[in-house]
Amino acid sequence: MDKKGKVYIVGLGPGGRQQMTRRALEAIGDSQVILGYKVYTDLIEDLAEGKKVLASSMGRELERCKMAIDLAREGHNVSLVSSGDPGIYGMAGPFLELNSKETEPVEAEIIPGITAASMGAALLGAPLMHDMAIISLSDLLTPWEVIVKRLNLAAQGDFVTALYNPKSHGRPDYINQAREIFLEHRNPRTPVGIVRNAAREGEEITVTNLDELLSHEMDMFSVVIIGNSRSYIQAGKFITPRGYVL
Amino acid sequence: MDKKGKVYIVGLGPGGRQQMTRRALEAIGDSQVILGYKVYTDLIEDLAEGKKVLASSMGRELERCKMAIDLAREGHNVSLVSSGDPGIYGMAGPFLELNSKETEPVEAEIIPGITAASMGAALLGAPLMHDMAIISLSDLLTPWEVIVKRLNLAAQGDFVTALYNPKSHGRPDYINQAREIFLEHRNPRTPVGIVRNAAREGEEITVTNLDELLSHEMDMFSVVIIGNSRSYIQAGKFITPRGYVL
Repeated sequence: MDKKGKVYIVGLGPGGRQQMTRRALEAIGDSQVILGYKVYTDLIEDLAEGKKVLASSMGRELERCKMAIDLAREGHNVSLVSSGDPGIYGMAGPFLELNSKETEPVEAEIIPGITAASMGAALLGAPLMHDMAIISLSDLLTPWEVIVKRLNLAAQGDFVTALYNPKSHGRPDYINQAREIFLEHRNPRTPVGIVRNAAREGEEITVTNLDELLSHEMDMFSVVIIGNSRSYIQAGKFITPRGYVL
Repeated sequence: MDKKGKVYIVGLGPGGRQQMTRRALEAIGDSQVILGYKVYTDLIEDLAEGKKVLASSMGRELERCKMAIDLAREGHNVSLVSSGDPGIYGMAGPFLELNSKETEPVEAEIIPGITAASMGAALLGAPLMHDMAIISLSDLLTPWEVIVKRLNLAAQGDFVTALYNPKSHGRPDYINQAREIFLEHRNPRTPVGIVRNAAREGEEITVTNLDELLSHEMDMFSVVIIGNSRSYIQAGKFITPRGYVL
């Protein structure tokens, strides 16, 4: 058999069917194998009927990428799925890092999805209406000093800032440190939004401020959005003005 | 008639039908009126059959928002459409700024879309795999000094940086200044991607570097992505490593 398969690196968006793109649905439909972290393959269980689903645990990203390349070489179309946008802290990077080093890379298509910052923002109001930074507080792959440096510069530049992976069991204190850094540059009343399990079961939407941030629950499935110096809360909505004269 | 309508602020994503979400399609289907900048309403002409389409020119954002509020009060469902994600430099902000000041705000739902950085990244490779900044070079609503400050801090923090509105007739020189700022902090060989008309007619994908950036065409329908100090180009793909040990 000479026919080679293709790897789709598919962004599922926040997880519900509603926020998936047509291209993501098509790619899954065109695949014989679905590969992904179990939490994500479970989200699309109904789309996977009749397909082989290879679910694995967190932290096996490189293994999944290699498996996808091998399966494509054997002639299968494979969807490597993850939540959000695979191009933002997702599977697109490790996949291309490996695939582009192959003598003959397999055919691949990256299918963007709605990233957590976009979905979280839509649920909170319109916090991302001005220049923004996205910073992950996970130090699994990045030294904490680099993260601290970036938090400082984002705070100093008055960037609206979305924090991914704000808290986990291994590092419950990082969000506290991030908050301290922002308090050096911004008013304690600066609006902060926390969205957990956006657009899927267990969704929680919290609008608070820097001062009170730590009294709310957060985990790896949350995104935290810190406003800039002009952000405000009105009628329950977290809004960053674009600059129009109303 | 007592029944009030609803306003959907709909992100079309890059423009093709493939990258729209199911929720965006539903919202348009559920609307009697489509409001938007003509370039965007044209993108969904086929979905607007039997609906009233009110297309207006650029720069009439507040007028469109007010019209949407009025139409909803009269009982119509309205889709206020724009490309990309309405929550990122889009219509979500001005709409909520106006609506939340009303004594009785109309019902509204923000439907996120694939933003230009996500789509551009997917076409270029995987440039956004690490902490990033998004900065608009448009000074219509932001003083140029604020933009310069943010460019400096993003460059200093080694953020991957996506530039929106990189160039227009009114300010052809801003991208040159942005490039100079980045050259103070990054190697001239730092990868840069330019994506014009992503995922729609006239799509152009360019992978270049800081040194050669200015020899390529850019306009208001382009997004420019500047890599961080670890970004590289391999097999034609622009990749920012996430930090995995391969």
